[in-house]
Amino acid sequence: MTFTAPTIEQLFVLKTITGIDDLARHERFAEATPDLVEAIVDGVGAFAAGEFAPLYRIGDTVGARLVDGAVKMPEGYREAYQHYVDAGWSALSAPADHGGQGLPFSLATVALDSLGAANMAFALCPILTVGAIEALHHHGSDTQKALYLPKLATGEWTGTMNLTEPQAGSDVGALRATATPRGDGTWSIKGQKIYISFGDHDMADNIIHLVLARTPDAPAGTKGISLFLVPKYRLDADGNPGEANGVKTVSIEHKMGINASPTCVLQFGEGEESVGELIGAEFGGIRAMFTMMNNARLNVGLQGVQIAEGATQKAMWFARERVQSARAGAGRDPVAIIEHPDVRRMLLRMKAGTEAIRALLYFASGYVDRANLEIEGAREMVDLLTPLAKTYGTDLGSEIASLGVQVHGGMGYVEETGAAQYYRDIRIAQIYEGTNGIQAADLVGRKLGMGGGDVVRGLIADVQADCGNHPALSALAGDCAEVTEWMIGASVDDRLAGSYPYCTMMAVMTSGWLMLKQQRAAEAMLDAGDGNADFLNAKLVTTRFYLERMVPEAGGLKAGAMAGAEQLYALDTEALAG
Amino acid sequence: MTFTAPTIEQLFVLKTITGIDDLARHERFAEATPDLVEAIVDGVGAFAAGEFAPLYRIGDTVGARLVDGAVKMPEGYREAYQHYVDAGWSALSAPADHGGQGLPFSLATVALDSLGAANMAFALCPILTVGAIEALHHHGSDTQKALYLPKLATGEWTGTMNLTEPQAGSDVGALRATATPRGDGTWSIKGQKIYISFGDHDMADNIIHLVLARTPDAPAGTKGISLFLVPKYRLDADGNPGEANGVKTVSIEHKMGINASPTCVLQFGEGEESVGELIGAEFGGIRAMFTMMNNARLNVGLQGVQIAEGATQKAMWFARERVQSARAGAGRDPVAIIEHPDVRRMLLRMKAGTEAIRALLYFASGYVDRANLEIEGAREMVDLLTPLAKTYGTDLGSEIASLGVQVHGGMGYVEETGAAQYYRDIRIAQIYEGTNGIQAADLVGRKLGMGGGDVVRGLIADVQADCGNHPALSALAGDCAEVTEWMIGASVDDRLAGSYPYCTMMAVMTSGWLMLKQQRAAEAMLDAGDGNADFLNAKLVTTRFYLERMVPEAGGLKAGAMAGAEQLYALDTEALAG
Repeated sequence: MTFTAPTIEQLFVLKTITGIDDLARHERFAEATPDLVEAIVDGVGAFAAGEFAPLYRIGDTVGARLVDGAVKMPEGYREAYQHYVDAGWSALSAPADHGGQGLPFSLATVALDSLGAANMAFALCPILTVGAIEALHHHGSDTQKALYLPKLATGEWTGTMNLTEPQAGSDVGALRATATPRGDGTWSIKGQKIYISFGDHDMADNIIHLVLARTPDAPAGTKGISLFLVPKYRLDADGNPGEANGVKTVSIEHKMGINASPTCVLQFGEGEESVGELIGAEFGGIRAMFTMMNNARLNVGLQGVQIAEGATQKAMWFARERVQSARAGAGRDPVAIIEHPDVRRMLLRMKAGTEAIRALLYFASGYVDRANLEIEGAREMVDLLTPLAKTYGTDLGSEIASLGVQVHGGMGYVEETGAAQYYRDIRIAQIYEGTNGIQAADLVGRKLGMGGGDVVRGLIADVQADCGNHPALSALAGDCAEVTEWMIGASVDDRLAGSYPYCTMMAVMTSGWLMLKQQRAAEAMLDAGDGNADFLNAKLVTTRFYLERMVPEAGGLKAGAMAGAEQLYALDTEALAG
Repeated sequence: MTFTAPTIEQLFVLKTITGIDDLARHERFAEATPDLVEAIVDGVGAFAAGEFAPLYRIGDTVGARLVDGAVKMPEGYREAYQHYVDAGWSALSAPADHGGQGLPFSLATVALDSLGAANMAFALCPILTVGAIEALHHHGSDTQKALYLPKLATGEWTGTMNLTEPQAGSDVGALRATATPRGDGTWSIKGQKIYISFGDHDMADNIIHLVLARTPDAPAGTKGISLFLVPKYRLDADGNPGEANGVKTVSIEHKMGINASPTCVLQFGEGEESVGELIGAEFGGIRAMFTMMNNARLNVGLQGVQIAEGATQKAMWFARERVQSARAGAGRDPVAIIEHPDVRRMLLRMKAGTEAIRALLYFASGYVDRANLEIEGAREMVDLLTPLAKTYGTDLGSEIASLGVQVHGGMGYVEETGAAQYYRDIRIAQIYEGTNGIQAADLVGRKLGMGGGDVVRGLIADVQADCGNHPALSALAGDCAEVTEWMIGASVDDRLAGSYPYCTMMAVMTSGWLMLKQQRAAEAMLDAGDGNADFLNAKLVTTRFYLERMVPEAGGLKAGAMAGAEQLYALDTEALAG
């Protein structure tokens, strides 16, 4: 089968859910005309299908390898990456005054959707570069911006995020890497970082590492952390990559999936010195890190959409090709398995689920643009939607990949068909950029408290105002409202004990609402004779499937959301783990 | 960490759920005294931990390999298998008049639980032998039984099931392998079979292949299929393995997991002749196949329990060792992650879920014994429980393995910790021995119709009679009753459209009921001062967790169960798969 980017769907969601036309009415995004948007969506879709998709399999079977201390990407990756840079796909949403095109983040989201659906592990590299761009854009000095942003914006150089150390995973504050002043305004960085995605590779001329470290006499914990820029190659007087900067790739991890993404252990400043520049204020590392990670969280949620799209296309193709058994109660001739009811249920679940999480992610990305436009309430919406989109996007993405394996039957378990690769690849997305459990904690901690609960209440009220005639969605919104009030009144422990099911309920409610919006938009377009009727009719079915079959499932999570913490601690640790 | 077989739990479930003491009151199982049962459970548990568990990792990293046309198992497997045979663990439930010990199947289930929790791929080999024993025991001639059963019972020889061909997967009737009479009562077998687990290996002196094939002029479809016994080595006059029998291992599959289980493509009768014996009547192949597969389905459901147990033990160990972040709202010192509420939720879900599916499988295995004792209604209960146990056991087993990865965070995605192996290994269990979708179809097809629906109604009524004071379970049983009546009145398509969620609902209801039974048994034992108080107190918590948090989730599946087929076919195939 051949991957095809779902461009009609992407444009429909951009229009009906993101509100791209509305964004284009703002001066800053005036260039995002319908014609340009369509050209970009079609262009990047064709590029993803033509250049990234064919490299998906070799990325798994050969993978990135560490050869003589340097990471060697599989054959074809360097060339495809160069084409990606040359075509300008990297620069879409980067700041216009620093080499980017200044287009909406939500348009870059669509580009990344296609690229990652074609090749998730490959498209992870640009995600990290975007994080570096964000950190520099918001916290870097003018000199730093001038020096690094243009190269990162075009993708000529790539970026990394260096947070984790063996003893400091989710607990970033426990990190030990050090930064010592060199007396000339620069810093000498020392320490080991682990799980550094694309920490080394051979696709770009330089790699810009953003590294969290402690300065001398820094206070303990997260308050004492600062962010440093440490290039793989120091820049010469002309700003070009020069001598090596003491960043050593010690090893790369042997992982369950995303084998085309080298996950590196990096050693800074051992033997050779690693010279770094401070980004933002000393001790401002955590703030800068959140800037760097926030959109990255949405982009990881988007990986769920990417894999869901790829896995669904593959399963659809297989289910049409594979002939097996007659339909029960309908003749004796074997049929393509897509004709069997339970296979069709799986396929519709995959398709509807993919559309639901795509809508959630594109909805959130629209608010990123609105927040950048400083529209009131938009930042809070991004903050609220981020944990929902990261968690549910990756959870449902994993489930859809699993259904993809299941549709393939025994052939799904054999690696040759590629269904298993989606299943293995996506599993990391529930973990990195803040585990989904941490996202749920963020929801009931920071996010629920925004405006004394009014931001969450506002979202639920918006859904309720819109879904009066839809029984399942209306019931779920009511449940969400009830759990929300319970959460607001609950202890920290009780909130955390129910955080995960609550996060899922809120995400399903929001996705269900966005599916309802799409249903109505599709109906209106069909009535008006606009758009692609086949696409719109399919949309009516998938939205109905999601609303009638998947939304009610989330109601089953209410008991767990409100069960409280007492039960979790009824056994002491010894008795539980004993 | 070191794997330990959960023997206290196993004995408790055997007693309270299987009713092992009740079984031992029957003449046939009189040997299964409490002392012997305990000795066996402890003995096989120690053996599994000591000999099978240490080989789990190498089974994944090295795996079974095809070398010069023969499968070579990883180092240590042959020896451990010999010890397994020598210790008599293979023979537990095999017929006493043919070299077995004639003990209850439910006791063999416990043995397999421990062996597979220690090493799922390894313990798959005995499952296939059990299938061969069942087929021979019920359909073989006296001569065949005398010749083959004793060696299979002890495990000196192993068995395989040869059903699948490239064009005949779930649709067994499409198979093309042929059997031609040789004139001396034996048959010449020709054809290729795929996905043959342990189709070749170097652990035993002979391999007894049970092969479905077509005789000349056989009618098309399943009605024309016969079962043949084809040994790897022909037996000499003394019944010992002699010359090779033309069974060639063409290749082994590259799979996502269970790499210690060689999944073979076997070629019969190409070049050298493959001589086979007919088992049972000509054209009786499908009946014999179901005999062979039926307990195998329960044993595959049990693989869900095995992996859940192994993954839970590993996650518990990791969560106690891994120190990360202070507890929210409770001081500044970092704690072991087991202390964090959402990690504890995951761990309790793993533990409670493991216990729930263990109870379901042990419950079903007790009915296998009762059916063998020809107790009225027992065969129907086995028939009804089999699709529930196979589907839910493997689905929840997969979910628990996924939670195990999640608890490990980034380290779960790296292969070194072993959490990922459980996740990859278990994924096949939802597929083989009849995909879970086929199990669900079996439930709403054959099983729901038993006694005009009264077998299903009877189970629900038993639950309802018992759960009056438990709101969540009572609600779910009511939902199950409602869906059941709807299903009975529905069209074939509508039934199949809701079969999967219905199957899960029924399985959760049954598991919830068995958890309630355990809760009451634990309470009674605590009141009486019997048993291990720590274990019983933990049981009170896990049963409560399952009943209060997990049972309500299944209620969310009701809408999908009753949604009907119209929605699934609202789009034609072209519009769906595009």
